[in-house]
Amino acid sequence: MSQHSRSPEHTSSAPHPFDAAVRLVTQEENLFQGKTSPAYGNMVGPFGGITAATLLNAAWLYPRRLGEPVSLTVNYAGPIADGSMTILATPVRTNRSTQHWIMELSQGGEIAATATAVFAIRRETWSSTEATFPSMPEASTLGSIPLTNRVAWIRNYDMRFSKGGFPDFTRPQPGQDSVSSLWVRDEPPRPLDFLSLAAICDVFFPRSFLRRQKFSPAGTVSLTSYFHADSAAFERQADRAVLATARASHFGKGYFDQSAQIWGDGGVLLATSHQIVYFKD
Amino acid sequence: MSQHSRSPEHTSSAPHPFDAAVRLVTQEENLFQGKTSPAYGNMVGPFGGITAATLLNAAWLYPRRLGEPVSLTVNYAGPIADGSMTILATPVRTNRSTQHWIMELSQGGEIAATATAVFAIRRETWSSTEATFPSMPEASTLGSIPLTNRVAWIRNYDMRFSKGGFPDFTRPQPGQDSVSSLWVRDEPPRPLDFLSLAAICDVFFPRSFLRRQKFSPAGTVSLTSYFHADSAAFERQADRAVLATARASHFGKGYFDQSAQIWGDGGVLLATSHQIVYFKD
Repeated sequence: MSQHSRSPEHTSSAPHPFDAAVRLVTQEENLFQGKTSPAYGNMVGPFGGITAATLLNAAWLYPRRLGEPVSLTVNYAGPIADGSMTILATPVRTNRSTQHWIMELSQGGEIAATATAVFAIRRETWSSTEATFPSMPEASTLGSIPLTNRVAWIRNYDMRFSKGGFPDFTRPQPGQDSVSSLWVRDEPPRPLDFLSLAAICDVFFPRSFLRRQKFSPAGTVSLTSYFHADSAAFERQADRAVLATARASHFGKGYFDQSAQIWGDGGVLLATSHQIVYFKD
Repeated sequence: MSQHSRSPEHTSSAPHPFDAAVRLVTQEENLFQGKTSPAYGNMVGPFGGITAATLLNAAWLYPRRLGEPVSLTVNYAGPIADGSMTILATPVRTNRSTQHWIMELSQGGEIAATATAVFAIRRETWSSTEATFPSMPEASTLGSIPLTNRVAWIRNYDMRFSKGGFPDFTRPQPGQDSVSSLWVRDEPPRPLDFLSLAAICDVFFPRSFLRRQKFSPAGTVSLTSYFHADSAAFERQADRAVLATARASHFGKGYFDQSAQIWGDGGVLLATSHQIVYFKD
């Protein structure tokens, strides 16, 4: 697939904007200092995916980390203000092949997000993908989404929708379901890893926008991602776009859920991800 | 649907076995003492669903609880031994209409499970169910599963499978997918509520048993449930069986995921639930 970069070539002298955004400075063994990045700003506070990746990074950086992430749940407890943040990452239990985590992100002494994660040393077993790899046109045949009048973080992704693109609220399309399918990668291209995959799991705009063809405030309350990929899968995927699909199953009483799949080249299921999202009428 | 009870009528003098199993005694405002129930014993330790319900009960019992559960994530960090347990339930952030929780279950000073939850005051909004209500024969036309040689907790549920029932490992059926569909309710019947729904979200035997038609050790590592039901929906459902479906999307490197839907009467989606499960070859 083509990789038309819309930004100047990334050079090794400056970190990729993603790496700059998730960067943490160790204060104590399991206490970290981070900073919001304007490049990943959303309507209010940072893009939820970059917050998820930053929380995961705290466990990842822990010197006595065991294995690689299997699951990550992030609860968005309150607005995150621009500026510095503190992340306390506690390995609450370490077994022979698994490590269980609680992370707390705070600003000014108040908790703004929490997370739990399970890391594991994974071994080869029988494997099978039962989900169906979606049929999609090649990325090169699809246009990138326009970036005018969009929140900042969108500019750090190359997104090419084959279905369920960002709606034009001035021309609502009735009868729309909540399904989106797109090719997505970091912009400029960056080799995929657990952190960027954790962020991509949250790359979908609210399903309520699509289903209702109407704008109303919405925000993720809780996000859970399961990582089927390991480091070897990331090496094979490199910096090529992944295929991402999402849909809701129920909207009601101010919340809807969303289930997503992130596929790599050759029909490799890299992650499945779920979230519950607040929406206003 | 018929409700043939296999046990003597439940009388008001003794609590339902489910209520006895999730019972907590308040030690301090947010510190609770519980005890495993032999009636909900699994192969090793208690049924994961009863542990999820017990953790949720701690937040539920908190005197300054706000609203009702929207999401619950439980991480099973280690084996739970028969006997007493301590649950610390911390409301880490309370907003105007949401409350965010971290719960820790410990035995002998060691963490055996953690949970996070989001509670919310929910208001009427536009609503729509996009998932398709599964077509199922009536429960009365399906046989209950036999209870011989089964773990204890199964006896507290009436389960009637229309598809993907517990396999007979002595007669493996090749080409089986991982889908199960069943009617399920507490046995004896008990009015559905958040706690019993949280437990029912984990009522499925491991998808690896079904897909591989082979027994091998397996256990849930992390379980996330989204509650679409509220108290009014529970009143309408009362103690009638719910329709439960589950399937895996990927198995590999020692873990598989599972997505489930729990439906009430009239095509009401009560909960969607996801988990990642450890399995051995």
